[in-house]
Amino acid sequence: MPVRLAIEADLDYWLPEPADILLQLEAAALPDQRLDSRALTVWSDHPIAATDGDEGMGQRCWARTQYRLMAQYRATVTVDRVAVDIAALPPTPPRALPGAVIPYLLPSRYCQSDRLEGFVRREFGGLSGGAMAQALLEWTRGALIYRSGVSQGDTTALDTFASRMGVCRDYAHLLVSLARAAEIPARCVGAYAPGVEPPDFHAVVELWLDGAWRLVDPTGMARVEEIVRICVGRDATDIAFMTVFGTAFFQAQRVAVHRLDG
Amino acid sequence: MPVRLAIEADLDYWLPEPADILLQLEAAALPDQRLDSRALTVWSDHPIAATDGDEGMGQRCWARTQYRLMAQYRATVTVDRVAVDIAALPPTPPRALPGAVIPYLLPSRYCQSDRLEGFVRREFGGLSGGAMAQALLEWTRGALIYRSGVSQGDTTALDTFASRMGVCRDYAHLLVSLARAAEIPARCVGAYAPGVEPPDFHAVVELWLDGAWRLVDPTGMARVEEIVRICVGRDATDIAFMTVFGTAFFQAQRVAVHRLDG
Amino acid sequence: MPVRLAIEADLDYWLPEPADILLQLEAAALPDQRLDSRALTVWSDHPIAATDGDEGMGQRCWARTQYRLMAQYRATVTVDRVAVDIAALPPTPPRALPGAVIPYLLPSRYCQSDRLEGFVRREFGGLSGGAMAQALLEWTRGALIYRSGVSQGDTTALDTFASRMGVCRDYAHLLVSLARAAEIPARCVGAYAPGVEPPDFHAVVELWLDGAWRLVDPTGMARVEEIVRICVGRDATDIAFMTVFGTAFFQAQRVAVHRLDG
Amino acid sequence: MPVRLAIEADLDYWLPEPADILLQLEAAALPDQRLDSRALTVWSDHPIAATDGDEGMGQRCWARTQYRLMAQYRATVTVDRVAVDIAALPPTPPRALPGAVIPYLLPSRYCQSDRLEGFVRREFGGLSGGAMAQALLEWTRGALIYRSGVSQGDTTALDTFASRMGVCRDYAHLLVSLARAAEIPARCVGAYAPGVEPPDFHAVVELWLDGAWRLVDPTGMARVEEIVRICVGRDATDIAFMTVFGTAFFQAQRVAVHRLDG
Repeated sequence: MPVRLAIEADLDYWLPEPADILLQLEAAALPDQRLDSRALTVWSDHPIAATDGDEGMGQRCWARTQYRLMAQYRATVTVDRVAVDIAALPPTPPRALPGAVIPYLLPSRYCQSDRLEGFVRREFGGLSGGAMAQALLEWTRGALIYRSGVSQGDTTALDTFASRMGVCRDYAHLLVSLARAAEIPARCVGAYAPGVEPPDFHAVVELWLDGAWRLVDPTGMARVEEIVRICVGRDATDIAFMTVFGTAFFQAQRVAVHRLDG
Repeated sequence: MPVRLAIEADLDYWLPEPADILLQLEAAALPDQRLDSRALTVWSDHPIAATDGDEGMGQRCWARTQYRLMAQYRATVTVDRVAVDIAALPPTPPRALPGAVIPYLLPSRYCQSDRLEGFVRREFGGLSGGAMAQALLEWTRGALIYRSGVSQGDTTALDTFASRMGVCRDYAHLLVSLARAAEIPARCVGAYAPGVEPPDFHAVVELWLDGAWRLVDPTGMARVEEIVRICVGRDATDIAFMTVFGTAFFQAQRVAVHRLDG
Repeated sequence: MPVRLAIEADLDYWLPEPADILLQLEAAALPDQRLDSRALTVWSDHPIAATDGDEGMGQRCWARTQYRLMAQYRATVTVDRVAVDIAALPPTPPRALPGAVIPYLLPSRYCQSDRLEGFVRREFGGLSGGAMAQALLEWTRGALIYRSGVSQGDTTALDTFASRMGVCRDYAHLLVSLARAAEIPARCVGAYAPGVEPPDFHAVVELWLDGAWRLVDPTGMARVEEIVRICVGRDATDIAFMTVFGTAFFQAQRVAVHRLDG
Repeated sequence: MPVRLAIEADLDYWLPEPADILLQLEAAALPDQRLDSRALTVWSDHPIAATDGDEGMGQRCWARTQYRLMAQYRATVTVDRVAVDIAALPPTPPRALPGAVIPYLLPSRYCQSDRLEGFVRREFGGLSGGAMAQALLEWTRGALIYRSGVSQGDTTALDTFASRMGVCRDYAHLLVSLARAAEIPARCVGAYAPGVEPPDFHAVVELWLDGAWRLVDPTGMARVEEIVRICVGRDATDIAFMTVFGTAFFQAQRVAVHRLDG
């Protein structure tokens, strides 16, 4: 059953010097998530400019400004998505993967999947396909404790594998790394979702299983039927809601996602 | 004036266990490099399967085998490319970049451009566009010593920035990182070229300047007019000639590129 | 001429769970810095326990507590030290070094001197001894910009070498790394000093030249004649004013160092 | 019952440029290991010079040479050591540790114990002292597969924690890191031992339990009663049999340790 969600996001940052800023704030228009209304306002010295997101999904927006950067996003989105039981999906051998998903098999800066192949082989060696994916999802969820303040912007999946703590970004990086180590293409997804505590931008995961990307939330905080995707990428580098080419200091930030009843 | 090149590449690896192998060995068919003849032979337990390369450039090939993996590539390629004086090209503000090149502005595993912004700003702060690109190219060429055996598969641009030594891969990673730190999109290119000493797969760089990718060789070993591109990507992860999902031991490898006269 | 300094340091941290805390807050009693008065007060659930510092210099103190950790240190110290012109000191070949200084020739976690040998050799290849030390000190001071908020607890000398920015800790790590790469033993020193802006614990460097440790401040903020040493070590790991075996959150912290006239 | 061992070690390296070399090859003379005979021969351009090892244990030796470095060590050692059941030893609170062992509680370059605190707390939270040490030893032995060629000189405990493979050095780094994360001081030990396969320098671990350093071999290859210690340190940096300040290429190396019967 479709779910209607109201999304609000507000950013307020301080830039001591003029800088280019790349924003990824807008819900993507996709078959399983329809934009009923949307408005992005960015206070910027130079006019903002929009471009396509990765994989043709969603939109990026450039701003250039000094001193204060403020952005406000408001949208109403109808999500019409059915959660799939990934455990039942058959394996796809790498040779049968479309070329476009192969980059998501490879290690990336925060998802050093090549370093985790030994662990995956030892602990989950007999599994493949959806059964493997499900096992890795459950392992990640069980092994980690959700805790703010223990990870940073440069925390990698290897760090999280050792610390066993982190936030949604860290859960996503670890699951993506484990999946790639198991030869399952995996990517990070920037998202909005109700139920995220504390409310913030959310990071979830898509796994390529049986010919399609399958959305999962390794933290378990959001229901797959209620996730609004913003953008996808190899890891946090690609899905950052804001990338500053220079220096920016946090002033304030607010994200709110509510279900609209009726 | 077009240049005709004969390319030979032979791989011989030992795989203790069955593994999937992703090969990127084939010269890409592109307007500025025409394939006159080509033959790829892979001795594999399972039939090989080809898919597109990144950015729709070139071809990848999957093999799956145990024990011995042998591959042989032979091609004749006509390169018809004119070197451009990059120093004269005007700057493009980030907001004017096509969406498809934005990923090449972002840091990646081996090209941590975000960490080099401070250096680039301090040393090259007044430059932009082609003048900046040329300055970074010359700096890289002058600062590094070409030496085998000092870098490894996990050597990053930051490592090379400190050690001041490396091979073509390290030169490419450092120039790509510096360019991205200067807000110039930059990508790594896997290539064949005559003049590479010792003869091997080569890694060069493409910089996005004035609306197009511009090929440069930071090592200075190959002439731009004689480089045959295999594939492109964010860093060595994407342009590896061979990615093994498992373990492989080097047995023998040979690359030879010769000019065909007349 | 001796200098009298009044030192005040106050820590206030929050510990969600019981944890062991290692404090290094006390000025060391040494021939060139005399303790006129001192008082350390730690509010801790368990009685505190003192042990020797590294190299027999200074004191460490253990506390164990939950919820709130508060510590207050007050001291009056007379520093009687003459700054030495290090540039004039002769080189010591490694073979002539006492065994006890050899660990300070080796790389450590935040001072990866082995990675910087290439840079030091290329840029400062003809120098040795005090002339080398002076050149590295001046290079570090000139290459870096003092800036808070750009480095973190896990920032290494390699990071700083690339970012060209940081605080006293980063300056110390970089100079120590360059010196070790030049085969000059170097260690980090935790210190109090007037003139540090903003006032805080300070980190400086000791270089082993001509048979003794020579104190230098790579930031240039403190005069060698006014530095009060707390402890020494290989890098920030060893000289941290507080090491928590568990989790602690910053509440408040204050350091003040004043000259006492007359 | 005492064990008599014959030790032979031969090094042969190539140095393209003159370099200082620090060697740690000699069995340490200690109460539980008596040197019956010993001879170290180093072919070096400059006379070699000996200094003390870390913690006053063993000997280091400096050489300086170009082109070929050859070293030969021969010794006969009687080991008279009784293995202790570490599982039965009581815990020591950090506050009761001697100052000299505190550095071995702190993280080091290859033993990033601070990153593994989360894992240790989650998996072994209720244990302490010898019971904790025994659990960590057994976990390390069970979790890792002994395999050459998968780790390198810059492989860290975090890498090994993820790859689940490595050689003696990697086993030692991981156990040392886990122990420090559990607030048990731990150090790496360079050693000779019979039974090491393939024969080579060995790396084992000492844990500080109940007031003394307790020797353990996380690989399980050597019996505690037959290990001959060379030197100790925080990690592989300190216990390297050879540290080159410059570049050296491996030519040949041989280590042999035999039991002398009767």
